[in-house]
Amino acid sequence: MTVASAFEPLEDLLQGFAEATPGYSGQLCVMLHGNVIVDVSVGDLTTDQLTGVYSCSKGAAAAVIGMLFQSGDLDLEAPVAKYWPEFAAEGKERLTVQELLSHRAGLMGIDGGVPMGEYLDSENLAQRLAALPRMWKGNTLFAYHALTVGVFAEELVRRIAGVSLQHLYEQEIRSVHGLDFYLGLPESQEERFAPVRPPLDGWPESFVDPFGFQGVGLNSATGFLDDNGQQSFDFFTVPNLRIIREKAPASVGGVANARGLAGFYATLGKTLNAETLQEITTLTVAGTDISSGESGAFATLFTKPRPEDNFGSWRAFGHAGFNGARGYSDPLYGLAVGYVPLHAELSGEGTRSDRIFKLARQLVLNYAATGQPELRTNEPSSSTPKDS
Amino acid sequence: MTVASAFEPLEDLLQGFAEATPGYSGQLCVMLHGNVIVDVSVGDLTTDQLTGVYSCSKGAAAAVIGMLFQSGDLDLEAPVAKYWPEFAAEGKERLTVQELLSHRAGLMGIDGGVPMGEYLDSENLAQRLAALPRMWKGNTLFAYHALTVGVFAEELVRRIAGVSLQHLYEQEIRSVHGLDFYLGLPESQEERFAPVRPPLDGWPESFVDPFGFQGVGLNSATGFLDDNGQQSFDFFTVPNLRIIREKAPASVGGVANARGLAGFYATLGKTLNAETLQEITTLTVAGTDISSGESGAFATLFTKPRPEDNFGSWRAFGHAGFNGARGYSDPLYGLAVGYVPLHAELSGEGTRSDRIFKLARQLVLNYAATGQPELRTNEPSSSTPKDS
Amino acid sequence: MTVASAFEPLEDLLQGFAEATPGYSGQLCVMLHGNVIVDVSVGDLTTDQLTGVYSCSKGAAAAVIGMLFQSGDLDLEAPVAKYWPEFAAEGKERLTVQELLSHRAGLMGIDGGVPMGEYLDSENLAQRLAALPRMWKGNTLFAYHALTVGVFAEELVRRIAGVSLQHLYEQEIRSVHGLDFYLGLPESQEERFAPVRPPLDGWPESFVDPFGFQGVGLNSATGFLDDNGQQSFDFFTVPNLRIIREKAPASVGGVANARGLAGFYATLGKTLNAETLQEITTLTVAGTDISSGESGAFATLFTKPRPEDNFGSWRAFGHAGFNGARGYSDPLYGLAVGYVPLHAELSGEGTRSDRIFKLARQLVLNYAATGQPELRTNEPSSSTPKDS
Repeated sequence: MTVASAFEPLEDLLQGFAEATPGYSGQLCVMLHGNVIVDVSVGDLTTDQLTGVYSCSKGAAAAVIGMLFQSGDLDLEAPVAKYWPEFAAEGKERLTVQELLSHRAGLMGIDGGVPMGEYLDSENLAQRLAALPRMWKGNTLFAYHALTVGVFAEELVRRIAGVSLQHLYEQEIRSVHGLDFYLGLPESQEERFAPVRPPLDGWPESFVDPFGFQGVGLNSATGFLDDNGQQSFDFFTVPNLRIIREKAPASVGGVANARGLAGFYATLGKTLNAETLQEITTLTVAGTDISSGESGAFATLFTKPRPEDNFGSWRAFGHAGFNGARGYSDPLYGLAVGYVPLHAELSGEGTRSDRIFKLARQLVLNYAATGQPELRTNEPSSSTPKDS
Repeated sequence: MTVASAFEPLEDLLQGFAEATPGYSGQLCVMLHGNVIVDVSVGDLTTDQLTGVYSCSKGAAAAVIGMLFQSGDLDLEAPVAKYWPEFAAEGKERLTVQELLSHRAGLMGIDGGVPMGEYLDSENLAQRLAALPRMWKGNTLFAYHALTVGVFAEELVRRIAGVSLQHLYEQEIRSVHGLDFYLGLPESQEERFAPVRPPLDGWPESFVDPFGFQGVGLNSATGFLDDNGQQSFDFFTVPNLRIIREKAPASVGGVANARGLAGFYATLGKTLNAETLQEITTLTVAGTDISSGESGAFATLFTKPRPEDNFGSWRAFGHAGFNGARGYSDPLYGLAVGYVPLHAELSGEGTRSDRIFKLARQLVLNYAATGQPELRTNEPSSSTPKDS
Repeated sequence: MTVASAFEPLEDLLQGFAEATPGYSGQLCVMLHGNVIVDVSVGDLTTDQLTGVYSCSKGAAAAVIGMLFQSGDLDLEAPVAKYWPEFAAEGKERLTVQELLSHRAGLMGIDGGVPMGEYLDSENLAQRLAALPRMWKGNTLFAYHALTVGVFAEELVRRIAGVSLQHLYEQEIRSVHGLDFYLGLPESQEERFAPVRPPLDGWPESFVDPFGFQGVGLNSATGFLDDNGQQSFDFFTVPNLRIIREKAPASVGGVANARGLAGFYATLGKTLNAETLQEITTLTVAGTDISSGESGAFATLFTKPRPEDNFGSWRAFGHAGFNGARGYSDPLYGLAVGYVPLHAELSGEGTRSDRIFKLARQLVLNYAATGQPELRTNEPSSSTPKDS
């Protein structure tokens, strides 16, 4: 069995999606121990085209935070206020960087909403958020800070490194490895951008109180810019605005293809050492997200596998986007994976991507049974993921 | 659009309940920025009549606790034992007032039950509870202390203020604002009392172990007094006993109409300042209640919205009663609401009250779209709810 | 009503299982205040025969840990590293014994699996585990350490007492009370052993990632020994290997009959005093198990009742096995119960054992209504379970 033949079922699965759902279009890239073993697309997407990947962007932000940890410039256990004195307001003196970056702060947004422009250029918004009291007490409750966690990462990078998170990512990571995963898409690449399309499969609807925990976190009261720069509630179109792609807020503004996402995770071990990866990819909070009532599991910015979104081994880490795109690394399988659908779709248990991620692992296990790839262990002598 | 016409759909909804379910009777009062905009009843209740509101009473208890916090007499972060030395028994030296009043103590009751009389005159019961070990370790687990959290509030008030919680509530709050929400119904008001009626809609049944976490919390082993002063298991009749209405244990003994509940929340900002309201209404614990397996979310005595009981914005606070009555304030909407059904009914997702509370918000949002009411923000300059 | 007649419905229920499901075989022993009131079997099991009881074994381990606590040799609040210095590796200096023994360590196994032999003779495995980093941060997350929690208990006993956990259990507990609940089945008792049989009722299947939190906890990558001493994935046959019964790893190796399990819990109060029992049987963690996504509730090694597995009062404690066997004590009812099915079956809400445990309590309550047995209270004067 060759690598190529061993992983052909993944291509068949993607092809099956297109046959089952007219209009389905998607990209899948799977790397094993740093080598591309699958890089395919179906429908109206080539493997080269780029589209919006929403919160997959948070993975790039995590890598930059990891760089500052590795250089000793950022202590994740330190209070945020050590780097950002104004953050101490309203009793937040002791809230740590790790708590802030694992969605435990209770600063999901501002009542009444924020003009989308503030997310694009977050310095002022960071100060507004720093002045707020927390939405809860203690350090075990959490809720997904969909739009503000990136603001906090951006402000910490500005304070510590004196440059933007996007700049560091571009200089130290994206350009170094030639990745098709941008935080700030250059004009020159615009011709490769395919706009995000609305869902083919329907989408769950419910009353989201714009002033509830979730609504504040989604900025629902104000909504987002539409194609004419007006406020709108259509989150499906956010990356289709040039200004979003250009400014690329770290929470949602990334643009990529599947190969770019997989490549990002496959090369992360070249940027960050094993100690740093362990620090920023270890689970710190899990259970029920108080804003959605659904389960969640977070490391520092990265998401972690959980029974309801079982995308990898316990050491896997990555991030999904609102549109169902996802990039992740699974060090125990030696996998780095990127998946990008053109039409927004759900992720988690039973979805297309869930089937892909489970099949990928089963194929690695089958292939390993032939004696080929080395699977990893958490024991000290080999705890370092060398090439993913 | 006038306020009256903007909120007419709420009256229609209540009327619809009566048409859909013969016998349904209920009151609804909605206040916006301190003004009554809806005050209606259907079925066998006038808007003036009073009935039992069970745990809505805990909102009144919270207000009294807030007064002691505001005066500096009670530090919510201090150990309970600071005010109540005997409480230190059995390793409880460091349990704080806020932990105790947000259902984290693990002191839901006494094995084998307590005669109902002890809840009516709680001094002795408080001492029995203070002598117990906790039912769990740590400060993150919680379970609804349905009957004892009021005992603790009462004892703290006695220890600190030297008078009863009910007395302070009557003197400083109820009588000041002329509220139809009593902790201790005077004989003179008895003619307005309409007894709580059993459910029209059925009621979920399951085996509640009288010695389980939940059974101990509900005093199931002993039961409650029936109309003849005998022990009985019928929680539906508790407020129908004159002695309950007279003594009014803070956990369950309140009597009110919808206007009284709404008025209580609408005037709370006159009793308590913004700092106090923030302190006692901020979420401190959420997740799965270990006694019921259902979700819960608590501030200091008040309940908070959660996905399974989405009654308001993230800043909303209030309390529901066993019979489905509820009073709450929603500072971000400028709303204060009271809802009282005559027949006991369930509350939470999909129930009558859930539909009312969601519609109320949508009507405010619609009305706000016409430029009328000021919606609030959590930012410092306007974080104070002035009139709710 | 005699005790015998009062509890006859339990025998009828067991008989009913056999009638409803051809092939069903099981044992039930119920003791009330130390007296055997039910000791029956149906199908292909006599009351004397023994079979594997899997994780019921952890109850025996808990009793040995309790002995060391009682003698003052083990402080449950102390760091594990106080007794086991190597455990301090990888930032685990402060993790306490109680956290370790209530499934909060995040050391469920070793990536890639462990040969089953290492669980049988755990000294080396303990050192491998001690060298690992935790799988998460903080002390509130938990996941069932199905196979390793016994390894930790064994190592602590070796370090503190200088002998094996199995030896202490045999000398100080099992042989003293003549219990048919073995950790290490003597050759002389082998003729009484009936092999565990596979499920009659089907068994839920799902993809368990061998490198996921759950798969690592179940050692899925390596699997278990089959009848020929080869690695296999069939957990149903584990106790059917003589070497498992002989070495009896504390996590899974126990052999018992229902009378042995009930007797163990009924006599526990003779080995451990009230203070010790309170310390090791108090709930320390509850909520969602991050590895399974299901609920869990643990004291020190023992499991506790929860809404989804409501086996007793809030003071009940015990442990179920993979095959649906269970032993527990319920001090408030004066009950000690053992249940052992021959074919593996599920436990929890709606299962055979759930029906048995609920009926047992209802019969005690009914019988108590005739004035006979004394039910207990958590108040100081009578908080000691004397004979269970």
